[in-house]
Amino acid sequence: MGMPDTYSYLGPTGTFTEAALAQVPEAAGKNWRSVNNVGEALDDVTSGRSVAAMIAIENSVEGGVSATQDALASIPNLRIIGEYLVKVQFALVARPGIELSDVHVINAHPVAYAQCRNWLEANLPTHGHIPSTSNVASALSLFDSDLADAAIAPPRIVEHHDLRLLAENIGDNQNAVTRFVLVGRNSALPAPTGADKTSIIAELPDDRSGALLELLEQFSTRGVNLSLLQSRPIGDALGRYRFVIDADGHVFDERVADALMGVRRFSPKVIFLGSYPRADRAPVEYVDRYDDEVFIEARDWLRSLISGEPEA
Amino acid sequence: MGMPDTYSYLGPTGTFTEAALAQVPEAAGKNWRSVNNVGEALDDVTSGRSVAAMIAIENSVEGGVSATQDALASIPNLRIIGEYLVKVQFALVARPGIELSDVHVINAHPVAYAQCRNWLEANLPTHGHIPSTSNVASALSLFDSDLADAAIAPPRIVEHHDLRLLAENIGDNQNAVTRFVLVGRNSALPAPTGADKTSIIAELPDDRSGALLELLEQFSTRGVNLSLLQSRPIGDALGRYRFVIDADGHVFDERVADALMGVRRFSPKVIFLGSYPRADRAPVEYVDRYDDEVFIEARDWLRSLISGEPEA
Amino acid sequence: MGMPDTYSYLGPTGTFTEAALAQVPEAAGKNWRSVNNVGEALDDVTSGRSVAAMIAIENSVEGGVSATQDALASIPNLRIIGEYLVKVQFALVARPGIELSDVHVINAHPVAYAQCRNWLEANLPTHGHIPSTSNVASALSLFDSDLADAAIAPPRIVEHHDLRLLAENIGDNQNAVTRFVLVGRNSALPAPTGADKTSIIAELPDDRSGALLELLEQFSTRGVNLSLLQSRPIGDALGRYRFVIDADGHVFDERVADALMGVRRFSPKVIFLGSYPRADRAPVEYVDRYDDEVFIEARDWLRSLISGEPEA
Amino acid sequence: MGMPDTYSYLGPTGTFTEAALAQVPEAAGKNWRSVNNVGEALDDVTSGRSVAAMIAIENSVEGGVSATQDALASIPNLRIIGEYLVKVQFALVARPGIELSDVHVINAHPVAYAQCRNWLEANLPTHGHIPSTSNVASALSLFDSDLADAAIAPPRIVEHHDLRLLAENIGDNQNAVTRFVLVGRNSALPAPTGADKTSIIAELPDDRSGALLELLEQFSTRGVNLSLLQSRPIGDALGRYRFVIDADGHVFDERVADALMGVRRFSPKVIFLGSYPRADRAPVEYVDRYDDEVFIEARDWLRSLISGEPEA
Repeated sequence: MGMPDTYSYLGPTGTFTEAALAQVPEAAGKNWRSVNNVGEALDDVTSGRSVAAMIAIENSVEGGVSATQDALASIPNLRIIGEYLVKVQFALVARPGIELSDVHVINAHPVAYAQCRNWLEANLPTHGHIPSTSNVASALSLFDSDLADAAIAPPRIVEHHDLRLLAENIGDNQNAVTRFVLVGRNSALPAPTGADKTSIIAELPDDRSGALLELLEQFSTRGVNLSLLQSRPIGDALGRYRFVIDADGHVFDERVADALMGVRRFSPKVIFLGSYPRADRAPVEYVDRYDDEVFIEARDWLRSLISGEPEA
Repeated sequence: MGMPDTYSYLGPTGTFTEAALAQVPEAAGKNWRSVNNVGEALDDVTSGRSVAAMIAIENSVEGGVSATQDALASIPNLRIIGEYLVKVQFALVARPGIELSDVHVINAHPVAYAQCRNWLEANLPTHGHIPSTSNVASALSLFDSDLADAAIAPPRIVEHHDLRLLAENIGDNQNAVTRFVLVGRNSALPAPTGADKTSIIAELPDDRSGALLELLEQFSTRGVNLSLLQSRPIGDALGRYRFVIDADGHVFDERVADALMGVRRFSPKVIFLGSYPRADRAPVEYVDRYDDEVFIEARDWLRSLISGEPEA
Repeated sequence: MGMPDTYSYLGPTGTFTEAALAQVPEAAGKNWRSVNNVGEALDDVTSGRSVAAMIAIENSVEGGVSATQDALASIPNLRIIGEYLVKVQFALVARPGIELSDVHVINAHPVAYAQCRNWLEANLPTHGHIPSTSNVASALSLFDSDLADAAIAPPRIVEHHDLRLLAENIGDNQNAVTRFVLVGRNSALPAPTGADKTSIIAELPDDRSGALLELLEQFSTRGVNLSLLQSRPIGDALGRYRFVIDADGHVFDERVADALMGVRRFSPKVIFLGSYPRADRAPVEYVDRYDDEVFIEARDWLRSLISGEPEA
Repeated sequence: MGMPDTYSYLGPTGTFTEAALAQVPEAAGKNWRSVNNVGEALDDVTSGRSVAAMIAIENSVEGGVSATQDALASIPNLRIIGEYLVKVQFALVARPGIELSDVHVINAHPVAYAQCRNWLEANLPTHGHIPSTSNVASALSLFDSDLADAAIAPPRIVEHHDLRLLAENIGDNQNAVTRFVLVGRNSALPAPTGADKTSIIAELPDDRSGALLELLEQFSTRGVNLSLLQSRPIGDALGRYRFVIDADGHVFDERVADALMGVRRFSPKVIFLGSYPRADRAPVEYVDRYDDEVFIEARDWLRSLISGEPEA
């Protein structure tokens, strides 16, 4: 079932994706394989080169999220096994001896550069920009050439390299967080923790205006709350959509299992992406009416009806 | 298990309720027990004096229907095992030798009398009215006294007694039909026929405006159509309601069973009244998406997800 | 506008319907016209013989309620203008000098008689029954003949006639209440009181299983609660239904008006029966989100969007 | 009202965003202002430097889409006035005289580079990568230095510069399309065309599981179909969401206006982003029941009810 000691991530060392992988206890001390993009990372998993891959799923500054969602919708036998949040913080770093007043040219990944525009305009209004291939390559370039005087990089870069922080938290959005998921292959599900999430991708049966409501009723009638709901054009025809859905709870919870069966019956195509612990470890809240015992009791009740036993 | 050869019905011989019982093949040649009202009929069943009782459930001209619904909601262990429709037709009958022009006084049950008002005003504008205790007692009274010249009764009365029809179809509503149900005790359910009905009574969890919608979604999300929906105040507190519901299909149908479990989980109190063949024998229509196999397939799918098997 | 000083009711003097009419301040001191049934009462209104008629709409012991609902659905230009509750209490009455131990034969309307069965079986197990045309005619018959020794009647009968109470509250259901409505013609609506009710009858567009849900969503999306919901077969074809609906609030309330327009657009046929004060005078409860000002603000907002003004 | 002859877009000349702007007839012959990111583009509009800005809203390869959505949710008085689709096609271009076999180093924007991975692995397995700040800067760099032998760029680049196409359609996803919107300030709405779209951003009242359903019912009860539905965390507290919604139709359509008022009443915060012609010019389909006349008729009906006129 794949190399038990290899994990793939969007590299190189120092990226936000690597920071997400650093949160995975099982990955500690294993082989970490740096790759160039999401496609390569998922290939590693399906081919067995890696046991799992860390990929950005929401709000990424390191690559397209809709590409990730489309990949999960089209590559079979993948399974999300964990969720991780990384605060997106940018720092301006330089070689020792360089002061902020010395900075004229900055090396930065174009997406990171765009996200620090306000700070740069206020503090370095006349600087030049040299692009890099990643948020780490920008910093490493400072050792290879002196074209740039400073680089935009994750702040932890200074723990690994002989660089100094010229400024911290220079991103425009101080609350930016990227959500990552660890993706493995079809295999045993992570045990429920009480603070779990279940991800699916489901197509609507057709374009009639009530179809989406019926899909969502599969969850609401079982008391299951959704934390993500995103339409994506299917692409094979105009006006057809699939929905990327994160539901509170684990497929081992009766209410989630029942909702998933409802979705399976309703939807022409549904992909189960996994049940896994939430990054924020916040226990799932739901009303008592949808407790496991209530589902079990209802099944017992139905069984007794069908068998013709007197009601309790 | 009750006297296997006794059936109770609202008598006496000749009522519409007896006509309903005459439609029951199993009751042919058995002991038919005539009772005075619904309460007595259901008592016969719960006490074991009768194997089943025929009672009006909708549009009755022989007694209150809401009393029937309330009785079914409060007496445990009853089960509807069949549904029957009887066309409500009234005739004006008299002793041999009496002509319409001889009629000055009419004996009639007050409810039947009210339903023939238009015909009476047009044809006998100056008649008098003597009330009777039933739609049959009116006709029988003609043999006991000559206070009345004619009686309002079901037309079949002339098959059993020496009476003649003075006028047929004298009711104001030519399409009037009463719906009856045959009620027995908790026992083996009638086998599904493909043209079945399932009856329940369910309370709403509370008075919030969305509760009824959530109850109905339990049916709509499984593609189950309703043919009866009736609110009834519960009576123990202001503003609380229960609903009398007839759903298309049999509890042995996967979609109905799943909907009932959903109702059981949602509703603080639900009473299963039975699954039984529809009186009109019209096959239940539903979209393929809610076929038994779809439910079985969804269960298999869920089982494979949980066991960690690769998806087909 | 009809005879301004005549009100019709199901008579004769002393019925529960008359007790309902006695609750109407406007009817005090006017001409009260006693009629024989609901059809006659509504005819009085449409023909202009009466300004209004009192009729039972739920739980009646004096006539069929579904007939009332069907009449309201088919006779145009009627309008409910008030709602009244009457406690259904039965008494056993007799001429002066008669004791309970003297009673062998009882005169009673068949429906009332059926509702006192438990008391009669316990206290007069061997009595005979003579039927009457109404709950009052039973008592009056005691003055015309001595065939019966006592009668079942509303307890207030002793206020009008020289009769004595042998027993009170002899009905099986101690909490029985009949709901009446006062029906007039299309005309100015009663002013809102904050404790109002709006009644309609609406057909569903077709038999698809989601149609009822869509009808109810017209109310729930405006925060309007329902206190009555009753399916009735339309009668012109199998499987088509109309719904009798009581909604909390007055058509002068923005949320009710908006819901009614939604129903009008959705339903192939909708009949507005009126907005009128609730019998229980309980103020309508609803969440602030559906207050009149919210509707007005939303209209202003839309108007500013359409006119291209900047948002506030 | 801003400089009437300036339009902002993500530059430089040759980007996909510029290709979107080239589809706008009103922009032809006007001043086109090239900016570095979405924030700058929207600043141009709010400050009045530009009359409108073209920005990517879905599936962009030139910048984050969630940043765009968040900007539209937080900057007041913006209005979408048009929608445009641009096929995302990448080409490999080089200076004249360079053949594919000569290519060892490629200049490319990191996001574009990631999307051409498959073709590059198959055709140039051993190449090196130099990053650029944009999909156009990559090509222009070929004139400034000979570090790179070829560049990844939009194919139209060869119309403007002395470059040759070494390979076309080298992107992994042959059907990739980016959706752009033209954003102006609050002002007169574009006239309805019958093929329109209305965009809003709405917050849910709270986290209860039925809130989203109620939001969507505001559309479904008026027969309005949605083509985009996307949850976004609000960011001020855990578990609160807003939804980015594209609805079929124009706010001048009665059903859309009525749905928007419903959303306004329901949602604690709703932002109207505009009504504008769909890029695909596909006429909006809806059932007759939701036609403008039906809304007008319902208003007339309600008005006559309230005024006490007899029903037609």
